[in-house]
Amino acid sequence: MAATLDVTGRTRVYGCIADPIDHVRAPMVFNPLFEDRGIDAVMVPVHVAPDRLGEAVAGLKAQLNFGGMAVTVPHKLCLMELCDEVGRQGQLVGAVNAVKFDSRRRMIGDNFDGAGFVAGMRAEGYEVGGRSVLQLGAGGAGRAIAFALADAGVSRLVIHNRTREKAEELASAVLTAYPEVPVSVGDADPDGCDILVNTTSIGLHSEDPLPLDGSLLRADLLVAEIIMIPERTKLLEAAIEKGAKVHYGRHMLDHQIELIGEFLGCFP
Amino acid sequence: MAATLDVTGRTRVYGCIADPIDHVRAPMVFNPLFEDRGIDAVMVPVHVAPDRLGEAVAGLKAQLNFGGMAVTVPHKLCLMELCDEVGRQGQLVGAVNAVKFDSRRRMIGDNFDGAGFVAGMRAEGYEVGGRSVLQLGAGGAGRAIAFALADAGVSRLVIHNRTREKAEELASAVLTAYPEVPVSVGDADPDGCDILVNTTSIGLHSEDPLPLDGSLLRADLLVAEIIMIPERTKLLEAAIEKGAKVHYGRHMLDHQIELIGEFLGCFP
Repeated sequence: MAATLDVTGRTRVYGCIADPIDHVRAPMVFNPLFEDRGIDAVMVPVHVAPDRLGEAVAGLKAQLNFGGMAVTVPHKLCLMELCDEVGRQGQLVGAVNAVKFDSRRRMIGDNFDGAGFVAGMRAEGYEVGGRSVLQLGAGGAGRAIAFALADAGVSRLVIHNRTREKAEELASAVLTAYPEVPVSVGDADPDGCDILVNTTSIGLHSEDPLPLDGSLLRADLLVAEIIMIPERTKLLEAAIEKGAKVHYGRHMLDHQIELIGEFLGCFP
Repeated sequence: MAATLDVTGRTRVYGCIADPIDHVRAPMVFNPLFEDRGIDAVMVPVHVAPDRLGEAVAGLKAQLNFGGMAVTVPHKLCLMELCDEVGRQGQLVGAVNAVKFDSRRRMIGDNFDGAGFVAGMRAEGYEVGGRSVLQLGAGGAGRAIAFALADAGVSRLVIHNRTREKAEELASAVLTAYPEVPVSVGDADPDGCDILVNTTSIGLHSEDPLPLDGSLLRADLLVAEIIMIPERTKLLEAAIEKGAKVHYGRHMLDHQIELIGEFLGCFP
């Protein structure tokens, strides 16, 4: 089935909203899945500037066969404000990365960054519930992952961030939402932790240093990345050298796609 | 090239707007053409109810990679009202069947029904300029074709319609727009005319009668239809029996597609 050739009046339309738009990848991920699974749907890029987001959303609400969107930069925060309803993770993170339109054309958003990470870990055989985690980074992705780790029931969450105040703010927010989870701010030292998660962007560029002192890595540690390219970051290289298990960044995206597809209702 | 698989952030998006939407055919015509011609574009169905047309248009204006739409029932008239600019045929007909968005996101509409008919005739070797035409019907399609025939410079245009007032109204409108063309209202008799065009829906159904007295058909007449299915209507059967040349309904749509594609800017 060559799906564009099969677009008919019955085909459900989905979007991926961004500005700029050229670089978005979601259509290249979703459309082949629609085709493989025989789903009569198509995902198209939706290029909207931030100052026209309100009109764009009102217009999409009026398009009755438009099912929803993957949401990317710079719309994740503003689109949340325009939602009629936001799921718990979206509310906690303060940003949505998917929105759908229900039968009354209300826009419902949620955030699957963190859940995608946890689902990816589980799919690789790494349960995070009951384990202690050192998380490096407290930025956008870090925020989503911290809440998802707490939601998954980690036994302890230590957050390290270069700017300590950001780590404190996130730890406090996670603690408020999940008072039963011991959350603290700490050094970039996985001592006493089962899992190390790097949510910083350190490792994206070949000249980047390690996001922590490499001598602190241990063979009994699970080291997880969310950086997709390079697949094997310097951190993962160093972890492998120590005999540690590693978890690649691509799993977070792969499993998020499934979660977003289910949320949008395009994967039956 | 399987085009949906090739939808990227750079792909230009076009629509076909209608309500209901299931039956629309434009995506099934345009997408294979995009694929055949290596054009990085996709056409999707856009389902909008009449009372939400304003919001939908405002939203599409905010979607910077949305190029334009084929327009079908029931939006041809109302969408014209929302256009920032309407081409001459669209203005004359009082309806648009295509709208595009320019670089300032102004919505520009026009009507290609009549031009598609004339282009189809020409492609089959039948020039209408300088020829005399009896047109049966003064409905939506008839209106578009009458103006296009006048625009193409027919030597005479006789309009027949069951409700004579509608023929008179159309003849008067054509005469106002094209004072140099002799336009009149007449009987369903092609005597003295080179070309007979049936723009009524009589012939769509197998139980339909002929749209005129079959004994008036002549071997030196060119008989044209705009009905696509059946391809060979009772009228065309009767014309062939008389030894007349015939012109099939599908040419009008085929040639309109090219004109609309050029107008939308999706065909280079």
